[in-house]
Formats: sequence, structure tokens, C-alpha cells
Amino acid sequence: MTDQDFPVSEFQARLERLQSALRDAKIDALFLNTEAEVRYYTGFRTLFWQSPTRPWYLVLPAKGEPVAIIPEIGADLMRKTWVKDIRTWPSPRASDEGLSLLAGCLNKYARIGILSGRETHLRLPLSDFGELKERCRGCEFVDVSDIVRTQRMTKSALEIEKLATICGIASRSFERSDTLFHEGQTLKQAFAVFRIDLISEGADDVPYLVGGAGPGGYGDVISPPTDRRLANGDILMLDTGATRDGYFCDFDRNFAVGHADDDAKRAYSALHSSIDTALAIARPGVTCSELFKVMATCLGSADSSVGRFGHGLGIQLTEPPSLIDFDETALQAGMVITLEPSLEIAPGKMMVHEENIVIEDGPPRLLSTRAEPELPVIGG
Amino acid sequence: MTDQDFPVSEFQARLERLQSALRDAKIDALFLNTEAEVRYYTGFRTLFWQSPTRPWYLVLPAKGEPVAIIPEIGADLMRKTWVKDIRTWPSPRASDEGLSLLAGCLNKYARIGILSGRETHLRLPLSDFGELKERCRGCEFVDVSDIVRTQRMTKSALEIEKLATICGIASRSFERSDTLFHEGQTLKQAFAVFRIDLISEGADDVPYLVGGAGPGGYGDVISPPTDRRLANGDILMLDTGATRDGYFCDFDRNFAVGHADDDAKRAYSALHSSIDTALAIARPGVTCSELFKVMATCLGSADSSVGRFGHGLGIQLTEPPSLIDFDETALQAGMVITLEPSLEIAPGKMMVHEENIVIEDGPPRLLSTRAEPELPVIGG
Repeated sequence: MTDQDFPVSEFQARLERLQSALRDAKIDALFLNTEAEVRYYTGFRTLFWQSPTRPWYLVLPAKGEPVAIIPEIGADLMRKTWVKDIRTWPSPRASDEGLSLLAGCLNKYARIGILSGRETHLRLPLSDFGELKERCRGCEFVDVSDIVRTQRMTKSALEIEKLATICGIASRSFERSDTLFHEGQTLKQAFAVFRIDLISEGADDVPYLVGGAGPGGYGDVISPPTDRRLANGDILMLDTGATRDGYFCDFDRNFAVGHADDDAKRAYSALHSSIDTALAIARPGVTCSELFKVMATCLGSADSSVGRFGHGLGIQLTEPPSLIDFDETALQAGMVITLEPSLEIAPGKMMVHEENIVIEDGPPRLLSTRAEPELPVIGG
Repeated sequence: MTDQDFPVSEFQARLERLQSALRDAKIDALFLNTEAEVRYYTGFRTLFWQSPTRPWYLVLPAKGEPVAIIPEIGADLMRKTWVKDIRTWPSPRASDEGLSLLAGCLNKYARIGILSGRETHLRLPLSDFGELKERCRGCEFVDVSDIVRTQRMTKSALEIEKLATICGIASRSFERSDTLFHEGQTLKQAFAVFRIDLISEGADDVPYLVGGAGPGGYGDVISPPTDRRLANGDILMLDTGATRDGYFCDFDRNFAVGHADDDAKRAYSALHSSIDTALAIARPGVTCSELFKVMATCLGSADSSVGRFGHGLGIQLTEPPSLIDFDETALQAGMVITLEPSLEIAPGKMMVHEENIVIEDGPPRLLSTRAEPELPVIGG
């Protein structure tokens, strides 16, 4: 098991916690087909999910051992995980892409949990899911999104270690911003040198890198880079979700190129302060909506197209909970979240600031190195 | 529109071709919710799809203009595309994540096309899709996977240009393998230097990089790298799906570290020859199953856990068609495919070889620089 990201005991603990929740909810088995969840319970990590051709299935009974039902191409890798019961079929196949194997496994259960709620998706073809329900006509499919969401929101000590590692890597890369970014550089070039620096620093991959730059602020926060050259007076923002061992960081940094105008300085300070107010109260028992409100109050505004002021972080770039007025999730020790307030400086001009923290008994611990309290000026 | 990957005429042509097929099939509108398809018809390109929090919708009527129904956070970027009718909601939201807007748009159509067949998935929560069907009870939802698949399989001249660019980038990086990879290097280090080289050469991103290394062959072709050090006699294989402007290459290269044994040399030559046989017959009108069979015959075997000997390539790492015995798709000029035969050398030891080509009237054109006919030996 030397190739694996975690010891077997980690996966046993995850399964036991799940099984206890399934039994409480009178669910006989959980049916999974999405990358994050299959990896969470098995340790099966591969970029091959990028190919939409083949479905991948995992059945977790409320009592007993996991069953992986997967294409033959994945058998060798799955055998390196802790899963013993691996059932495969040659894929692609003209018909029956694993459905017979899957139905044969699920048919013995009366109530089968699936993920169909908020922030979930269905990774198998909808027509195959329809056929599965036909073949399992005696089974009831029940949404258990809440059970899996609740479990995954609280990270184990080993998961937090992974998250701290990748946050440290990105923090060290951002600390070199003054040498990496400069006036006259295109945004595409800035992205490329930053990606390279992250990988040199120890990131496995940079699945998420977005950003913007513009005089005194930027227009949106999800765009790919353009060939526009950084100019004196621009605010440059880079937001990265780099990974190490399959765990994400997700935070950004803002820089003024050459010089900063007063509006930009004020916006930056306001965002920085609002994160301070969140850090001051982020404790077990405090709710996500309270964290949201304290930041919004500090900013004097909750008006932003981003819609929330942070979210969970882990195997995925964004995970539940959401820091937003309607999310009453109470923080617990072990939750890893982003604090991500945003502000409209002027119409079409915004600023975002983000840090990553872990909730602990007592004050939260920063996983990202706290940004400078005043807008840093680089390479003028 | 200077930030966009294609001129508006490209998207107009794509929509017109789709609309003609929809009308032939008596479908009133196509409902899309997946990244590749939304991008294909709009040009909306963002890594933000990595966040599972928000759904993204596109409605393409059989007559008329596209309607994007998206979270506010994406409005600015969508306004840079050719889509004029953009309807947004503040997301995340406690309930109604765009469903009212979506149902309001779809309700006027009798027959609505969706993607529910092979290689598709549902990017919105299953429960939301159930609610959508409730709200659109007068509508019939019909699978039109074949229409979209058929359209996307044949690439435009501008798409082929993008694919040629990224294949050229990866080809040039692979040509530096002798200086990039060497004995004593861990596989993780090899992956990192290769990623960095690809980005330095002009790739925007390297969403897919897998590989393996072992004495005389490797065990599987979808694994992340380990800390195992490359040793004399290893066969090293790297398979990359790098991107530029959102289009993928997908090919691999094999190298012997220090020296190659005869079995490995023979396997390499056999795979190389089998690609030659495919190149010799790949013309418009030839079927995918014929391409598969000619490669299998040359190898004397079609037995591999990979299950197919190539596939389509474009916005996604793998797209239809599949080079496999049951896929009777006839090649057409403009199709971009991979040729990817694989061979079991010994139990648990395999070799794969892959090239990327575009089908033309006449012989196919290689987009990847053809691999050496004999197994290259590097850094011994």
C-alpha cells in the first residue's frame, strides 16, 4: 500500500462512520458513481475520470465490505487500494456498461442511498440510471446527500495535513510574486510562470487557476487569462486551486502593479479586515451564516456576484458548507474552509480576497500564510 | 470578442448545423448542462466548472437564438461570448438554483432534447432534474446524444488548428525526453519536469498526465506517479492530455531507461507497426471497427484491459467515436482521433502507444510527431 495517499485505517474509519449513519437512516447500502466520493471511500485516485467514456461504481453496504464495480482498465490501480471485492467488465462495450454487475450487487438491498441533492451530479448516463432503476424495481432509491456531505465536511488529521501541505506550497509561491509578475507581462505569461512555480514548489497539479487584472480592479473572477499586458495601476488577482496528493488549496492574492490608487487600497483593507472579523469568531458552534454576516457587516455590503463569502475545501476545489446567509451549518473542529469576501469597487470592477483555515477547539488555524494587511505593490 | 477562442461565425455555423439536425428530428430545443457542450456552442470557457456548487444551463432552440441561464458569477464572462440572451440568478441560493428561470424558458417547447446516452452525464443534481420535469409536465424529454455526438465528432478547420497547436507543443516537449528524464529520478519528479516543460513550450494546462514505469513494461496506464526511482531496464511511459485554448492533445511516448530488453523492443515495434497499418487505411468511409481490426490483426491480439485502440479527441480528452469492434462509425474528413493500440507483454506488464491524427480526403495527417520506429533509449 506504499503508493496510497492514506493508511488503510483511514479508510476503515471513514467507512465505519458512514455505515453507522446509514444504519441510523435505515439505508442498506450507498451507491456512488462520482470521482470525489469514490476516492474518499477507496483511495482510488486517477486523472482518468477526465475521460467521460467509462462509468465507475462503488457500493458501500451498511454492513460489510466495499464493492468496486469498474472497467477492467482500472483493476490494477483499484487493487492497490484497500478494496478487496473488485468486479470488472471489459469497457467500452456495445451495451451493458457494468449495469448487470451493478444491478446484481444492488438488487439484494431494499433501501439504497444515492446522491441527488445540492452540489451533486450523476456521473453515469441518465439512460443507464433509468435502466438500473428498472432492473432494481424492488429497491427504493433514497437521497442521502446530507449523510455524505456531513461526513466529508469534517476532515481527519491526515486530511488536514494534506491540505496544510498544499496551502503551504501555494503560500510560498505567492511570496515570490514580486519576482514572478511584472508590468508588461501578459496575463497568460503570468499564469504560466505561476503554474511552473507552483509545480517547482511541490504541487502535483494546478487544476484551477483563474484571475484578472485591470486598472483599479477586475471584472470577474472565473476567467481564463488573456494576452492583455499588465499595466501600471492594474490590480492583479490570481486565485489558485493547486493540488498535492489529490487535495486542494483555494486562495487568491491581490497585487497592485507599480502603484495603487486609494479606492483599491481601501477595498483591499476592507476585505482584509473582514477576514479578521471572521477569524476572530470562527469557533466550533458558530454557524456559517454568522461567519457570512460578520464579514458582510464589516464590509457594509453583502452585494457581490460571487454570492457567498467562502466554502468548504478538500478533495474538491469547493465543498459544502457555504458561507452565506441561508447556510446554518455549525462549524466543527476539523472543518477546513475558505474565507472569501468580495466587494464591488465600481460597476464592473471588483475585488476578492481569500484565505484557507481549519476550525479547531479555540482559534482557527490559518493554512494559507496570511496576506499582507496592505495592498502589496509589485514590479512597477 | 478579442478574448474569445473563435470568431462568432464559428459559433453561428455550429448552431445552424445543430438546429438543422434538431428540426429534422422534430426537436424544438436542446437543453444542455455539461461543460463541454456549453462551451462548444457558446465559447464560454472557464475552469470554474471544477466547483460543483453551481449548475450552468444553455437552451438552444431549433429556431432562434441561444439562451444562457447561469449564476450571476458567470455573467461577465458569458457577456464576452456571442450569446446575447443571458438570464442569471444569485447563486448559491437556498432553493431554486435556476430552476424557475430554466422551466420558464423550456416550458414553451413540446419536445426537448437532452443528452442521456453513452458517455454523457447529468451535471445538475438529479433531484433538480426531477423537479424540472415536474415543472415542465407538458414537455417530452428526448435523448439527442447522437445528434450532438455526430456534430462534435467532425472538427472545423479552426478546431483542427487548435488541436494541431497543442499536439505540436507536446511533440516538442517529448522530443526533449532525453534531457528531461533519467535513471534515479522518481516518477513524481519526471511528471513535474514534464509538466513544466509543456507549460514552458506553450501549453495552457496539463489536465491529464499519467504514466508508468517498470522493468520491461508497466502494470497500468491510468495511475498517478509514485516515488519509485527510474532504474536501468525500466520502460517509462508518459501519456499526456495537455490543453491550449481548451483543446486537448492525447498521446504517449515510451522510453527504455539505460537499455531495453528484446521483449520490450519487440512489443514497441509491433505497436508502432500496427499504427502504420491504421495510418495506411484511415480514409473517409472506413469504419472505426475496421481501424480497430487492422491494428488487432497486426498485433495478433485484441486482448487488452484498455478495451479500445483509440478514440475521438477535442474539447475533451476522449470523445466519440471509439476504435473498437462494435463502433461502426464511418470516418469523415475533419475527424480528429487517436490511434492507441496496446499489448500485454506478460501478465501484469503492458505497453501502449498512441498518436493523434486528423482524417482528410486522402491520407490522414499526423498531428503528433510520429514516434521513433524503434524504442528510444534515454538517460542510462
